[in-house]
Amino acid sequence: MSTVEKTNIWVGLDLGGTKMLATVYDAEFKPIGRKRRRTKGTEGADSVTSRMIRTIREALVEAKVEPDQVSGIGVGIPGPVDQEKGIVLEAVNLNWQNVPLAKLLHKEFDRPVVVLNDVDAGVYGEYRFGAAKSARTALGIFPGTGIGGGCVYEGQIIRGKRNSCMEIGHVSVTPDGQLCGCGLRGCLETEASRLAISAEVAKAAFRGEAPTILKLAGTTLGDIRSSMLAEAIAAGDKAVEQIVRRAARVLGTAVGSCVHLLCPDIIVLGGGLVEAMPELYVEAVASAARKAVMPSFVDTFKVVAAKLGDDAGVMGCAAWAEKTFTTQKTKADT
Amino acid sequence: MSTVEKTNIWVGLDLGGTKMLATVYDAEFKPIGRKRRRTKGTEGADSVTSRMIRTIREALVEAKVEPDQVSGIGVGIPGPVDQEKGIVLEAVNLNWQNVPLAKLLHKEFDRPVVVLNDVDAGVYGEYRFGAAKSARTALGIFPGTGIGGGCVYEGQIIRGKRNSCMEIGHVSVTPDGQLCGCGLRGCLETEASRLAISAEVAKAAFRGEAPTILKLAGTTLGDIRSSMLAEAIAAGDKAVEQIVRRAARVLGTAVGSCVHLLCPDIIVLGGGLVEAMPELYVEAVASAARKAVMPSFVDTFKVVAAKLGDDAGVMGCAAWAEKTFTTQKTKADT
Repeated sequence: MSTVEKTNIWVGLDLGGTKMLATVYDAEFKPIGRKRRRTKGTEGADSVTSRMIRTIREALVEAKVEPDQVSGIGVGIPGPVDQEKGIVLEAVNLNWQNVPLAKLLHKEFDRPVVVLNDVDAGVYGEYRFGAAKSARTALGIFPGTGIGGGCVYEGQIIRGKRNSCMEIGHVSVTPDGQLCGCGLRGCLETEASRLAISAEVAKAAFRGEAPTILKLAGTTLGDIRSSMLAEAIAAGDKAVEQIVRRAARVLGTAVGSCVHLLCPDIIVLGGGLVEAMPELYVEAVASAARKAVMPSFVDTFKVVAAKLGDDAGVMGCAAWAEKTFTTQKTKADT
Repeated sequence: MSTVEKTNIWVGLDLGGTKMLATVYDAEFKPIGRKRRRTKGTEGADSVTSRMIRTIREALVEAKVEPDQVSGIGVGIPGPVDQEKGIVLEAVNLNWQNVPLAKLLHKEFDRPVVVLNDVDAGVYGEYRFGAAKSARTALGIFPGTGIGGGCVYEGQIIRGKRNSCMEIGHVSVTPDGQLCGCGLRGCLETEASRLAISAEVAKAAFRGEAPTILKLAGTTLGDIRSSMLAEAIAAGDKAVEQIVRRAARVLGTAVGSCVHLLCPDIIVLGGGLVEAMPELYVEAVASAARKAVMPSFVDTFKVVAAKLGDDAGVMGCAAWAEKTFTTQKTKADT
């Protein structure tokens, strides 16, 4: 690898519930070092933080970059953060509360650190480098166990009073509908997430209407993977296709409401479910969204599949650090 | 009136379906000249534009200000606009389409002109001078014949691909609900606007359950005013109170979805219906919104009544001109 310039090296770290990924980028956002590690969230915040530090160090070694050559570090977290203070407010899967992560990492590397929500990071990554490049308003939706969302508006990640990401998963879609993990009823995510699909598919499998699923996963919710849903549909399990299409339709209707509120140029759909069946899913969402908006909005937006896969988050983290520390100084650095 | 400085005089004009209001403001946004005129929309765009010009001229005369002392003019329009081009895309009540209003007014006054949506102007007015002062995210909702909405985020009016205001009135609240003017079903505005309330109240009056309304307005929708609804409730017409409370509840539920998406600091409710019964209505909306959000969002927002009444729009227009022409040059001026 060639000699690295001292400036404009950016590091991203995407912390997930099961694994973390650190990547070192050059000024053109080409990856020059990369390291994965298991999160081991059950070992507690101190242990996870140590593992994060080690992962970043090893990615820097691979990139042949010293910490003091780094312009900034961006870290994506599965939960709400206070960006200004650099604090992780909560990360349910990791059992974290109020962890001053920017300060901890800054102490270690003596470089500016910005902490952001992982879904926001993913949407920002797609906005900078992927499917939503240079949109004025880019809305990202990631259906998984829950349904995460984020919005980049004129180059800024929209954040609210709570500094959280967009909680599109808890937009109400079915008055008095199914019980949601948040305690409300009829939220988008309890009606249309991959988990919602799995529950309905398991029911169909139990009744003998989804033979491929029954063979591959039985009726255990946690065993039903997105790839199996795609396989079952390809094998002709009509019930599975109907269930997936219905969930996409419900999500599309919620997208319609977002279009009425924010009038985005582009809606990016990402995550394992979308990756397993991009055409069927994206078209079903787009079609339902078009039916759910006023005529004058029908042609104002596109619905597309994310392009960057797992890299969206880590690229978004590094790029958000670049944006943050190129335009302002943060508390952690002053 | 004292001698007026040559700079920092701002003019607002709020164009409504029935009347227009122009106000000249000094640098501290004190009104120094003001003129009202009927719109007479049926006479066509040329006639209305001439009346707008005359109204601004007369307000300037009252303010003892020459046109060349004006720093900028902001005009609020009841419909979607293209702000960058200064074009009114559509104003249904005026039968306008693609009117290059900024150009026309600039030709007349030789001063920079910005055109914006009237609801956006109202929300911006409340953000700058009224109930939403210095909020990070201020959401404004104005239930009337329809339900208008707007959002000011970090000092900017949020605009979408279509350059329109936020179409909160067409967020879906009742799947397969009542028919809306936009062609969809179950939109917020067909379920909960003042018009929706009037229709339900007229039905109750017809059945003999709203005696005060029957006496004051009969069962003719257009004759039922917000003040009569308030009077009927005060007189003990229980059916009217239940209908208004239900509409407020439906709107509060939609506010809940907006909170999940945008996490605003403050939601400002304005317009005649709110002014006629601020306490009952605002509390009913707030209570429903709190019930419709996840526990961690319950304390993140306030719901309040607008403070500026009819002045919100015209102040917002002038202040938006100030913001626009203090920070950038527009096409109309270069």
